[in-house]
Amino acid sequence: MANPKLIETFPNPAPQRDYVIEHTHHEFTSVCPITGHPDFAEITVSYVAEKNCVELKSLKLYFHAFRNEGIFFEAVTNKICDDLVAALAPRQLKVVSNWKGRGGMTSVVTAEMTPRAR
Amino acid sequence: MANPKLIETFPNPAPQRDYVIEHTHHEFTSVCPITGHPDFAEITVSYVAEKNCVELKSLKLYFHAFRNEGIFFEAVTNKICDDLVAALAPRQLKVVSNWKGRGGMTSVVTAEMTPRAR
Amino acid sequence: MANPKLIETFPNPAPQRDYVIEHTHHEFTSVCPITGHPDFAEITVSYVAEKNCVELKSLKLYFHAFRNEGIFFEAVTNKICDDLVAALAPRQLKVVSNWKGRGGMTSVVTAEMTPRAR
Amino acid sequence: MANPKLIETFPNPAPQRDYVIEHTHHEFTSVCPITGHPDFAEITVSYVAEKNCVELKSLKLYFHAFRNEGIFFEAVTNKICDDLVAALAPRQLKVVSNWKGRGGMTSVVTAEMTPRAR
Amino acid sequence: MANPKLIETFPNPAPQRDYVIEHTHHEFTSVCPITGHPDFAEITVSYVAEKNCVELKSLKLYFHAFRNEGIFFEAVTNKICDDLVAALAPRQLKVVSNWKGRGGMTSVVTAEMTPRAR
Amino acid sequence: MANPKLIETFPNPAPQRDYVIEHTHHEFTSVCPITGHPDFAEITVSYVAEKNCVELKSLKLYFHAFRNEGIFFEAVTNKICDDLVAALAPRQLKVVSNWKGRGGMTSVVTAEMTPRAR
Amino acid sequence: MANPKLIETFPNPAPQRDYVIEHTHHEFTSVCPITGHPDFAEITVSYVAEKNCVELKSLKLYFHAFRNEGIFFEAVTNKICDDLVAALAPRQLKVVSNWKGRGGMTSVVTAEMTPRAR
Amino acid sequence: MANPKLIETFPNPAPQRDYVIEHTHHEFTSVCPITGHPDFAEITVSYVAEKNCVELKSLKLYFHAFRNEGIFFEAVTNKICDDLVAALAPRQLKVVSNWKGRGGMTSVVTAEMTPRAR
Amino acid sequence: MANPKLIETFPNPAPQRDYVIEHTHHEFTSVCPITGHPDFAEITVSYVAEKNCVELKSLKLYFHAFRNEGIFFEAVTNKICDDLVAALAPRQLKVVSNWKGRGGMTSVVTAEMTPRAR
Amino acid sequence: MANPKLIETFPNPAPQRDYVIEHTHHEFTSVCPITGHPDFAEITVSYVAEKNCVELKSLKLYFHAFRNEGIFFEAVTNKICDDLVAALAPRQLKVVSNWKGRGGMTSVVTAEMTPRAR
Repeated sequence: MANPKLIETFPNPAPQRDYVIEHTHHEFTSVCPITGHPDFAEITVSYVAEKNCVELKSLKLYFHAFRNEGIFFEAVTNKICDDLVAALAPRQLKVVSNWKGRGGMTSVVTAEMTPRAR
Repeated sequence: MANPKLIETFPNPAPQRDYVIEHTHHEFTSVCPITGHPDFAEITVSYVAEKNCVELKSLKLYFHAFRNEGIFFEAVTNKICDDLVAALAPRQLKVVSNWKGRGGMTSVVTAEMTPRAR
Repeated sequence: MANPKLIETFPNPAPQRDYVIEHTHHEFTSVCPITGHPDFAEITVSYVAEKNCVELKSLKLYFHAFRNEGIFFEAVTNKICDDLVAALAPRQLKVVSNWKGRGGMTSVVTAEMTPRAR
Repeated sequence: MANPKLIETFPNPAPQRDYVIEHTHHEFTSVCPITGHPDFAEITVSYVAEKNCVELKSLKLYFHAFRNEGIFFEAVTNKICDDLVAALAPRQLKVVSNWKGRGGMTSVVTAEMTPRAR
Repeated sequence: MANPKLIETFPNPAPQRDYVIEHTHHEFTSVCPITGHPDFAEITVSYVAEKNCVELKSLKLYFHAFRNEGIFFEAVTNKICDDLVAALAPRQLKVVSNWKGRGGMTSVVTAEMTPRAR
Repeated sequence: MANPKLIETFPNPAPQRDYVIEHTHHEFTSVCPITGHPDFAEITVSYVAEKNCVELKSLKLYFHAFRNEGIFFEAVTNKICDDLVAALAPRQLKVVSNWKGRGGMTSVVTAEMTPRAR
Repeated sequence: MANPKLIETFPNPAPQRDYVIEHTHHEFTSVCPITGHPDFAEITVSYVAEKNCVELKSLKLYFHAFRNEGIFFEAVTNKICDDLVAALAPRQLKVVSNWKGRGGMTSVVTAEMTPRAR
Repeated sequence: MANPKLIETFPNPAPQRDYVIEHTHHEFTSVCPITGHPDFAEITVSYVAEKNCVELKSLKLYFHAFRNEGIFFEAVTNKICDDLVAALAPRQLKVVSNWKGRGGMTSVVTAEMTPRAR
Repeated sequence: MANPKLIETFPNPAPQRDYVIEHTHHEFTSVCPITGHPDFAEITVSYVAEKNCVELKSLKLYFHAFRNEGIFFEAVTNKICDDLVAALAPRQLKVVSNWKGRGGMTSVVTAEMTPRAR
Repeated sequence: MANPKLIETFPNPAPQRDYVIEHTHHEFTSVCPITGHPDFAEITVSYVAEKNCVELKSLKLYFHAFRNEGIFFEAVTNKICDDLVAALAPRQLKVVSNWKGRGGMTSVVTAEMTPRAR
């Protein structure tokens, strides 16, 4: 399973400000746990950093690690959300996965971290 | 008439979180109950799951079952909404049907389940 | 002048629910009352039905009846709004007319029925 | 029937050169001779002028004159081709009519004048 | 199997000219002969008429007759080509079928009648 | 300077209703007051009429009058807003000017009239 | 009238090769000689240089000089073709002018220099 | 390495006619042989069948078999061409691979079988 | 590092009104501080002016000054925000940087000035 | 000046076949030799390899080397053509540079190697 330890961070250059960082990976692919057929998605992560920002290349490698994993759309979206919240401890974070068509169906799953008390 | 028993479910992998799942079927077709001519639509279901998620292939087969049914745009949208609410008991659910042109007219029908008291 | 009696209705199949029905006519044409030149528009009607829904073919014929009428953009949009409110007694209704370019100008007129006290 | 005498001309400003003039009317409308329903098309005329060019406003009025004519796609395209060849005596002339969808069908009809011996 | 006798014709209004008529049906659907799943395509017929043109509404009904037929992409394209050549005896005729995605694959099949000796 | 007296009006056909009228001029051009180079913009005026509506052709001629004026983006947007408020005394009015690229920069300026006390 | 002397040149950096240079001016505007209303076009010049290339900024200023000229679509296209052939003595040259809509009509005029004997 | 034996065929339903079959796989992915990073492409195969057509699902599985292969753009395109020519013995066959951007570069490789003597 | 002193201003022509000015630079480029590879972005600045507006050409030159700077996406967005707030003392200001793809990832960073007490 | 020695090659995997390789760099930037302002282009190289193919990463670095060079559109296109012909000795090669707008003008320059005698 894709290891959250692949996610590296660097210090937020503007922690005094709530600003939004959004990264979209256009080439996410994993495998259907039932049929073994490949699935393809566009994954967007948007967040407000606290102390740390996610390093872009490490995020890409973390996404690549799903390439041969069998996992459902709903589960992978929640796992990415949980792994990034654990790695970044952000002020806010949202993950949107947008899945390409399979048999005339497309899907979008959107998960957001539970807001922290401030 | 398309049988709601075709709809299968699997356990929600993240019931602790309100997150949105959206499936769009791009190839819905039914039949006009008056003229017998085929109608074509794109149907989007978006919902917040409680205990169960809809299984994607069974949803497709449920939609396929309308292929030779004579039914109005307004009725089919409300039926899909009712059938999915019955099958999933979701926290929220919305159905949007977007109908292709017929004589220079296109139509969109949007039905949402009555919010549950929480 | 286009006769509102052309508008036919059928019983709302889901009166227990506030859901939105939207019809767009892509081929509306009337005539400029000053120059006599043809005008072209896309007309969208969206409404929440009470007891009755508008029958789609009759709506198209009602729109066709404007073909040789000389009438301003602002007046035709308000007339369609008034005629449909009279015919349907809906919970809500909005008309948007989107007019093609004439001399480098395009126009959009949006009229909504006065909300009813409930 | 739309009168070819509506077509006015002006002298070709560069008769020494074979160059191509193309006018597209985006708002052509006529009527189906069987059902009486309106038809809509985009008409493109492209030609190489000999002595005369077609005056743009008169071409528009000639097209407007089809507004309430009942005529088939194939016939109207050939009539426009014949009328313009008669009015302009051009070196070459082609008419393309591109008809909007009716019941899920769109059509394109393309007619070209018989090349003149030179 | 879709009956070629559904195809009706009317006399070519300009037999003295080789001009091209093209009809595109955007809502073709048939059924996969192996899986029974629905297939969707856009079918374009373009031809040069000899004595007869295809009547548009009959062409639509002929296409509708494939709705519940199990037939391969390659076979349906060649059958439409053969049926229309038999019905119209045209100077030229080409059929292009453009099939929507199924499992990340789209297909286009193009068949043309054998040119007649003239 | 473009004269606001060019703006003509006609009586609002539905003063009992707050409805929105929006006109977009796609071919606005003025001149940079520093370099003398032409500037090009799309100008959208949207308003809720009180007693009077702006007459469309007069609005076009008012816009044409800027053709050879040297004026900044910010100033022209505010002048149009002021001139139309003076001419129409509307319930609400907004002007958006959307300027084409110059040296890799595009600009949008949005000015709204101060809401009236009602 | 726009002065061809505005057109400046620089030496062709690769006269040993027939290669194609194409410049498109997206903001051409002149005036209708009959109505005085502004016309807008996109002008594309493509050519194979002999000894000289056209300097880009001077080409822009030459185009700007048409801003307040009353001139027909057909005449302006041929004049630009003639002026550039005179200024550049190119191996080949073509001018395409693509005019924005006026009353639902758009136009394209294409003029090419007479090929030189080589 | 992806095994050409995965490719299955069925008899050409219209061997008497030269017609074109084109399949596009939108979700091809392989691996860069140098960096190990994933590559993504759209692969189009178009051919004229002799005795056999390629079975669509087997073609998809053959493409899936490249998922974890390290192979260059140029090599994979030629291998697909060779494997399909070997499996189908077609009259003509062309393969186009269209690779998504990597560091601001996109690529297209097009290989065609050597025409057979007929 | 890009010098904020490059930013020039001119007096706000309508200080009595809160209106929005938005400039988008489509050709921003800087350098990745780790790899030295070029990065490309579209930068949008939108603000409500107090006493001064930013002069457009000086803004472009300020952006050009980043051409050979090594700087992260998050840092450059916050620096532009800070520099423009210092130069303009605006009522509101927001900066959005939209970064082109690198290895299948695109990014958007959005920073807004801390609202002033009024 | 960008050094052609940056261009690296690898052996053509299919020298027995004339097939086309096309690489497009979407992020080319150089500097105007007169004004010093940056220019941006999309550069497409398409060629038929003889013994060697261009290595993709080295091609990117070769393009990056123009970043701070002052050079005209016509000259840079011919230089890339000449450098690649020298490095690859291909059977055919074409370079197309497509330059972004500057003052309302866009440009495309297309240079092709002189065909070799075979």
